[in-house]
Amino acid sequence: MAFLNEHYLKLKAGYLFPEIARRVREYSERKPDEAKRIIRCGIGDVTEPLPRAVIEAMHRAVDELGHRETFRGYGPEQGYDFLRHAIAENDYRQRGLSIADDEIFISDGSKCDCGNILDIFGNQNRIAIVDPVYPVYVDTNVMAGHTGPADVSGVYEGLVYLPCTRENGFVPEIPKEQVDLIYLCFPNNPTGSVATRGQLEEWVRYALDAGAIILFDAAYESYVTDSAIPRSIYEIEGGTECAIEFRSFSKNGGFTGVRCGFTVLPKSLIALTQNGEKKALHPLWHRRFSTKFNSVSYPVQRGAEAIYSSEGREQVKQLVDHYLGNAGLLRQALQESGLSAFGGTNAPYIWVEAPKGYTSWQAFDKILGDLQVVITPGVGFGAQGEGYFRVSAFNSRANAEEVARRFKAIEW
Amino acid sequence: MAFLNEHYLKLKAGYLFPEIARRVREYSERKPDEAKRIIRCGIGDVTEPLPRAVIEAMHRAVDELGHRETFRGYGPEQGYDFLRHAIAENDYRQRGLSIADDEIFISDGSKCDCGNILDIFGNQNRIAIVDPVYPVYVDTNVMAGHTGPADVSGVYEGLVYLPCTRENGFVPEIPKEQVDLIYLCFPNNPTGSVATRGQLEEWVRYALDAGAIILFDAAYESYVTDSAIPRSIYEIEGGTECAIEFRSFSKNGGFTGVRCGFTVLPKSLIALTQNGEKKALHPLWHRRFSTKFNSVSYPVQRGAEAIYSSEGREQVKQLVDHYLGNAGLLRQALQESGLSAFGGTNAPYIWVEAPKGYTSWQAFDKILGDLQVVITPGVGFGAQGEGYFRVSAFNSRANAEEVARRFKAIEW
Repeated sequence: MAFLNEHYLKLKAGYLFPEIARRVREYSERKPDEAKRIIRCGIGDVTEPLPRAVIEAMHRAVDELGHRETFRGYGPEQGYDFLRHAIAENDYRQRGLSIADDEIFISDGSKCDCGNILDIFGNQNRIAIVDPVYPVYVDTNVMAGHTGPADVSGVYEGLVYLPCTRENGFVPEIPKEQVDLIYLCFPNNPTGSVATRGQLEEWVRYALDAGAIILFDAAYESYVTDSAIPRSIYEIEGGTECAIEFRSFSKNGGFTGVRCGFTVLPKSLIALTQNGEKKALHPLWHRRFSTKFNSVSYPVQRGAEAIYSSEGREQVKQLVDHYLGNAGLLRQALQESGLSAFGGTNAPYIWVEAPKGYTSWQAFDKILGDLQVVITPGVGFGAQGEGYFRVSAFNSRANAEEVARRFKAIEW
Repeated sequence: MAFLNEHYLKLKAGYLFPEIARRVREYSERKPDEAKRIIRCGIGDVTEPLPRAVIEAMHRAVDELGHRETFRGYGPEQGYDFLRHAIAENDYRQRGLSIADDEIFISDGSKCDCGNILDIFGNQNRIAIVDPVYPVYVDTNVMAGHTGPADVSGVYEGLVYLPCTRENGFVPEIPKEQVDLIYLCFPNNPTGSVATRGQLEEWVRYALDAGAIILFDAAYESYVTDSAIPRSIYEIEGGTECAIEFRSFSKNGGFTGVRCGFTVLPKSLIALTQNGEKKALHPLWHRRFSTKFNSVSYPVQRGAEAIYSSEGREQVKQLVDHYLGNAGLLRQALQESGLSAFGGTNAPYIWVEAPKGYTSWQAFDKILGDLQVVITPGVGFGAQGEGYFRVSAFNSRANAEEVARRFKAIEW
């Protein structure tokens, strides 16, 4: 008889976004007239059209595939050189960071990469995640058998949770115990927090001392407006000895439905065999792509390349400025309404403390019922998110302005 | 210290296609003039442009993403309903096979699916693979830790190999021992063989009796011209109780660089927990997509949908007929030259027995040196492939005709 992977059965059935959808549906059935006013600031999905330069590049690439002379079949599994080069050159070398073209691996998105990266690591690693956290980091470790079961609050046995609280500015402290893999995400989803250079230096020092690997999710790096805040973990000395960086075109180029991202895996990254032998991780990640992946659609790779053209850069900047403008409006409105609101200046998310006595879901129901605005309950991101909610700035300006007006009028 | 996945270290470094590339490069440096005549019939990659209907659909979808009103961000992780429906309806229900839309999972290709499917199975399963075999089935099991080390001939400890030989028509016999997961691929890569209805019925009966799951790779189903040969494992009664089917748009629509395929995972498929509890596999596969994937690029899904339009169907038929025409020419030329050539009538591959005394690589060198034609050595697909080589029919008609002429002239 075939056996299934029982670790999947440890996953909690109720995923955050289906539960939100259920509550919105239920409200809409009960209050059909009010429901017409609903504005969604929940899921972190872009709303504005793709940059013109991307559209044009994709059209050209599609046309190439329509003619025998320019047709392309299988591309290199790790991505086309033109895109690996554009990324390494523009995102790294031009900023003084020494990353080679073949240290860039093109993928269909950060979510996939954050899950797939576990393939190249052993099952004996001790895993540290922050709380609140992007659920994919946790769930993929559960599926890989790196945890025991969850308790009633959703905390999995075997993971090391690093609390991110108002007190530490939503930047986790260095753990007292030894961990081997550490997920960090800055600018942070869901809290919108950023780590200072000093804080990242501490993390890199810890990782180098412990021989740990930092899995650094920089999907929101283009939202960093404060020039003192690092946009890449490789801005920290020693970063290429201890960190894998994940990046995405989803939130700068609006690629959530187009699907393209990349990992940076420096050749200097080392891990151990059980016998204590040191081996580079780069050949393993390369091999994973060769064996389990066939790269990203050619027109998509051309679209991503166009992000680095001068027009593309200008258009992406306008997109990011648009969402950051929304974030500023929303943050200000939330603060004016008397709430404590964090993030939203170097990130497209605002993390809000609900008034005393409100759980995250109570705040969700109140905001849906009174304002017809959909937010994301903080507790959905982890136990430390209880009492908070996340407001996404991904919206049209008109919607953001309307939501800001409504928030100012709320009475708790 | 972080530990790596040591199972990767068991993988044999020399992958087939890099070694072919090395020999071609070395030959080209030694014989630059002859090298100008080289024609490649090695890697199974399409050469003809995308169908017009696909090109037009992709252009329309790209334009949609350029306007706010029609922009789409994240799609459903398992694929858009329009494509799941088109597939279930056209490929299955219209052929009398009862497959629901939500039993179709859209992916970026069969290679990825064949690897990723192992995620939902336990590590205690006994794995059967055919020999010769598409290397991805083997390597992904090695990476997942399902094997011991390989011996000198590349045979991995712990896998059950099912020989496919001239004697059994390159269709494996039912194993005497109990296995839990069985990889079958028909029409076959690399041998071009097909399984009869009776042979597939035997396999389904075995799987149902043993509680095993068949992983049925039908990437080449559109090349089946003999109406008596099943194109789907679900044409066999009981198939939906024991088989997962993998399909691809690579070899019908020419999507090798566009990237789209799908799996069919019927809700009736059951596997065991260690305690003997029976659970459906469908929710696990669904969950894997939700957690580790974010679906396929929207324009690509629209392109795949266009394959099912009346124009798309006609254009795909022309493409398949083109490659089958090449296969017929090549097969005939090989047979006229006195070689035993198999496949090539319901498949785009011809599997050729080299003359006595030639190993696969000796035949490779001879054909490259004498004819300036690149083929694939059979031993690259497994120990049983020794003494054989594969000729791919993916080429222009002019190239196929020229290769046919050259093969007729070879002297062994």
